[in-house]
Amino acid sequence: MAGALPRSPLAPDHFPDLPVIKGVRFATASAGVKYKGRTDVMLAVLDPGTTVAGVFTRSKTRSAPVRDCQAKLGTDPSQAAAILVNSGNSNAFTGHYGQTSVTEIVSAVSNITAAPQSRVYTASTGVIGEPLPHDRIVAKLGELNAGLDETALEAAAAAIMTTDTFPKGAGAEVTIDGKTVKIAGIAKGSGMIAPDMATMLVYIFTDAQVEQAALQAQLAEICNCSFNCITVDSDTSTSDSLMLCATGASGVDATGNAEFAQALEGVMMDLAHQVVRDGEGATKFVEIQVTGAVSDAEAKTHGMAIANSPLVKTAIAGEDPNWGRVVMAIGKSGAEADRDRLSISFGDVLVAEKGWVSPTYKEEDGAAQMKQDEITIKVDLGLGDGTATVWTCDLTHQYISINADYRS
Amino acid sequence: MAGALPRSPLAPDHFPDLPVIKGVRFATASAGVKYKGRTDVMLAVLDPGTTVAGVFTRSKTRSAPVRDCQAKLGTDPSQAAAILVNSGNSNAFTGHYGQTSVTEIVSAVSNITAAPQSRVYTASTGVIGEPLPHDRIVAKLGELNAGLDETALEAAAAAIMTTDTFPKGAGAEVTIDGKTVKIAGIAKGSGMIAPDMATMLVYIFTDAQVEQAALQAQLAEICNCSFNCITVDSDTSTSDSLMLCATGASGVDATGNAEFAQALEGVMMDLAHQVVRDGEGATKFVEIQVTGAVSDAEAKTHGMAIANSPLVKTAIAGEDPNWGRVVMAIGKSGAEADRDRLSISFGDVLVAEKGWVSPTYKEEDGAAQMKQDEITIKVDLGLGDGTATVWTCDLTHQYISINADYRS
Repeated sequence: MAGALPRSPLAPDHFPDLPVIKGVRFATASAGVKYKGRTDVMLAVLDPGTTVAGVFTRSKTRSAPVRDCQAKLGTDPSQAAAILVNSGNSNAFTGHYGQTSVTEIVSAVSNITAAPQSRVYTASTGVIGEPLPHDRIVAKLGELNAGLDETALEAAAAAIMTTDTFPKGAGAEVTIDGKTVKIAGIAKGSGMIAPDMATMLVYIFTDAQVEQAALQAQLAEICNCSFNCITVDSDTSTSDSLMLCATGASGVDATGNAEFAQALEGVMMDLAHQVVRDGEGATKFVEIQVTGAVSDAEAKTHGMAIANSPLVKTAIAGEDPNWGRVVMAIGKSGAEADRDRLSISFGDVLVAEKGWVSPTYKEEDGAAQMKQDEITIKVDLGLGDGTATVWTCDLTHQYISINADYRS
Repeated sequence: MAGALPRSPLAPDHFPDLPVIKGVRFATASAGVKYKGRTDVMLAVLDPGTTVAGVFTRSKTRSAPVRDCQAKLGTDPSQAAAILVNSGNSNAFTGHYGQTSVTEIVSAVSNITAAPQSRVYTASTGVIGEPLPHDRIVAKLGELNAGLDETALEAAAAAIMTTDTFPKGAGAEVTIDGKTVKIAGIAKGSGMIAPDMATMLVYIFTDAQVEQAALQAQLAEICNCSFNCITVDSDTSTSDSLMLCATGASGVDATGNAEFAQALEGVMMDLAHQVVRDGEGATKFVEIQVTGAVSDAEAKTHGMAIANSPLVKTAIAGEDPNWGRVVMAIGKSGAEADRDRLSISFGDVLVAEKGWVSPTYKEEDGAAQMKQDEITIKVDLGLGDGTATVWTCDLTHQYISINADYRS
């Protein structure tokens, strides 16, 4: 079904011009894992010295590739590394056969590249519970290895898509000690999006030098305010994987550097938002800003309760400024709220305050806000200093069609 | 929009023949709170001596009538009592005006019936955040009081409907010490259904004598395995109210009686299932049986994760035996699971076991199960003795239409 869906109305105009990251090369191929007439495997080969950090789903039923990657973080960075991703089949809930497929692929990738098996990371995304035809992937490794190209990141972003309607990329350049450090990343994700630790598949590369433990800590921290703050449908994938690879080719040590952290956060936030913009059936991009909560954690609980409410999301799809449903979601979230201190705005329009509709509110002002493609819902609890911002999309007929009418 | 929707395909053939409960009389009227051409207020008057128990939403933004009822449980049962319910407007998030409306209605009901204000319970259901035109309700109280009738329970069930497509009732008779005790109840609910303490509006009457504290404890206990185990859309109402009134007119003391408890549980379970059968847009009634969990609480966590998953619910709508999405929901629930001990069946068809699809499973067998109107999903975690059963419906285009295209 990939390719069968129209491009999201919230998609960016074009794939961004990404900086080339020295020390990593990409190739794609059509292995026919499930889809016909498109690429479905991506190989990335990383030079010796690259540090690798990763964050993965906490799902109790996570896939064999996820478990394999988790076991391989923090291995000796002195040798080359490789990442092999396929789309069309998630190799999740495939019993012992799942690990067999991972082992076969890792062994073959190690044989054809300079990467030891302990530095070969794989990921699979697509249907759950069907055996992965790993022979088809292994058969393409010679072609992939011969075609490695440092400029092929857009093709890589396209090869890992499933129900995505556009390839997702983001990049940044930052100057440290007079030298330029580059960051470029790709992501896939459209449905089954409510990351609990990372989201879907995300690969970010930088030519900075960053010590592995610092890289891992930085990735996890930024993940909490980017990928872990988005939801399309409250469902969490068995394959969520986010990896960050620092090749060090710039010769610049960015460990602990604030500008680097800021640039990395920008790239991760951009990719996270693109996943929401490609949410299955999405027609509205929604930012929910929560302030005045008892704590940041409680602010996020309120934000996610609003973002995951089917009644809020269908109201947005219908362009209905139905703030009563926002009140409902706050009430059910489990976090602290006081009806009489609560205020709610749609964009800059104050809708409700002090436990009731604002005396200045006009329904036509709320309705005008809801007609926008991008909607901001602001909630102030009036209780403390806790804040959070989360992102979601609307819930439309197209979401039902995508998920009821096909097996994805 | 009430009445505009076609009757749910999962609705029972007709309203049940309910036993008449001595000691309580009902009347309905058309006050024009919001709807035209239908009844929208219901008055029940209870004889002196009736004990009253109630369970209410724990929403932090719960309505003024809910707060008022909560404060009035356990008042002296020696005098008459009354219940006044309106549909079309929930009187929730209406600031201080909300309590004013409650006070006006309670005062007027008390004046016209023999019930003291401390024994007048009200409920309002419908749109959130609009002032309740309580004058229209008060103006109908004379008509209501003159029309009180002990046989008018079906009319009462119809008057409290909002997006419901059929009135919901259930009853039972039980013999205690050679005498007959009767139970009859009504419910409304269709969307915003994920009760956290009770659900929507439910009123149950019995002619048993039951001491108030015992009645309250029994209601709360049964609520946990009936109304608190259903979900339509994971959203929790600001108005959820469940009340149980024991008139004592049978002269039979049923306090602590096991047969009475069993009959009451049957009535409550029946009403809870009718709410699911009238879930907005529902075409499938789904029972999820979870066994082998670490605890009953963890079993319920797994069950509700499956029942609330949009991807599971859309697969059911599409009659797709997509057990991979059940695996996903178990994985994300947060409760303990071991992929290699898990087994999943659709009805009597074993689909997956030991971390993979069962060798005996045939896709056509799973597909045949999904074509039924009533579907059972069985999950065994293989970890312990914890069990839970929860109920839900599918997620269809009609749910989106109901909630995106109208303000309900």
